[in-house]
Amino acid sequence: MKKKTTINLPTYSQALPILVAVDCIIFGFIENQIKLLVFKREVEPYAGKWSLPGSFVDKKENISTAAKRILLELSNLKNVFLEQMHSFGDIGRDTGDRVISVAYWSLIKPEEGKSQTDIVIANHITKWVDINPLPELVLDHTEMVKMALQKLSERAKFKPIGLELLPSEFTLPQLLKVYEAIQQRTIDDRNFRKKILKSKLLIQLDKKDKSSSRKGAYLYKFDYNKYKQLQNEGYLFEI
Amino acid sequence: MKKKTTINLPTYSQALPILVAVDCIIFGFIENQIKLLVFKREVEPYAGKWSLPGSFVDKKENISTAAKRILLELSNLKNVFLEQMHSFGDIGRDTGDRVISVAYWSLIKPEEGKSQTDIVIANHITKWVDINPLPELVLDHTEMVKMALQKLSERAKFKPIGLELLPSEFTLPQLLKVYEAIQQRTIDDRNFRKKILKSKLLIQLDKKDKSSSRKGAYLYKFDYNKYKQLQNEGYLFEI
Repeated sequence: MKKKTTINLPTYSQALPILVAVDCIIFGFIENQIKLLVFKREVEPYAGKWSLPGSFVDKKENISTAAKRILLELSNLKNVFLEQMHSFGDIGRDTGDRVISVAYWSLIKPEEGKSQTDIVIANHITKWVDINPLPELVLDHTEMVKMALQKLSERAKFKPIGLELLPSEFTLPQLLKVYEAIQQRTIDDRNFRKKILKSKLLIQLDKKDKSSSRKGAYLYKFDYNKYKQLQNEGYLFEI
Repeated sequence: MKKKTTINLPTYSQALPILVAVDCIIFGFIENQIKLLVFKREVEPYAGKWSLPGSFVDKKENISTAAKRILLELSNLKNVFLEQMHSFGDIGRDTGDRVISVAYWSLIKPEEGKSQTDIVIANHITKWVDINPLPELVLDHTEMVKMALQKLSERAKFKPIGLELLPSEFTLPQLLKVYEAIQQRTIDDRNFRKKILKSKLLIQLDKKDKSSSRKGAYLYKFDYNKYKQLQNEGYLFEI
């Protein structure tokens, strides 16, 4: 039998503190593609390289508050889908110091016309980039984005998460494009329509979007109340 | 228009470090119930109170290494399902100091006979407790357990996570009991059998478990290879 040794757990005063950062993976749906918001890093090491929007958590601030603050400061966004994803804590992940990064992911509806060029927000340079292929990002940020894309694709199978990327009124072709972009594959149009309409979770509006064809396509809204009710009954939103 | 101000992001040397801890939510399936492993806290504040197994992350240690170390040190467990769940980072969550806790959850198969009394492992006092109702736990540990139970119930809908709680050979009544415990509700026996056998993911063995009836119940194994293959094709494991 192996001898079991006593392990002394460190007390509060014995433990060494660590820097904690928040990084945000922000996806937007632009020109039928999922795009990622990146910003030009301002601190050394790697100042001037493309990075996820992020910064250090203030010692007197909740992590979730830090995430909201960073999203607002570096992208001018608030009241959007923002959720903690995963904490990255390997000792070698940041050459600047030992930093644990709590990664958040966010889905937004970018404003028209703000998509393709560099945007300067509160003196920070940001831009939307393709996810396929991803540009080179600092530290382990590529790994973070890959995890978020995986999560997006998994979540979209069971929850109507794709809708976070669309305006509140959308057409069926737009919805299909979102799901194709999320799952990075072609989805059969007729099956998709049948499935989504059968769910009875879309409310057809009495107006059409005529931007892409003369005949136009009906606009729909998602019925969040009904979804919530069905969910409580054990319903699965399956695409 | 509001004036936008420049925000200066802190550098590595300007940021204040924070204590980081790991806490483990460890579930085991004992006497047809989900139980939680707790341990008697050894450091002030709240020394002597029941707590999740946890400790501080060493500055020179990956977070995932810390989780494995704590699981091993405080429960003597290794090579079990262990996954990062969520980081808890509100400023008021720990009265001892500003501590961010990265919570991990784990599902294990407890050894027979080690379930009901306090166990001393490397001089730490641990025990298995009921989850319904939960005993009083220190800090925000009750919130952590509730999130883990929620996650367990959600995950079990789509993935064969319940099997982590059973020995590798199990009977259908045992499997049903695990799912009933996870979902905290009675599940129709015949529907469950039909659904699970239809999935063709169980391999029936040529032997029976006779511990609970004279006739006995066939033992089964889960076909992880087949599951992996089906999963790659887009299969949903639905219970």
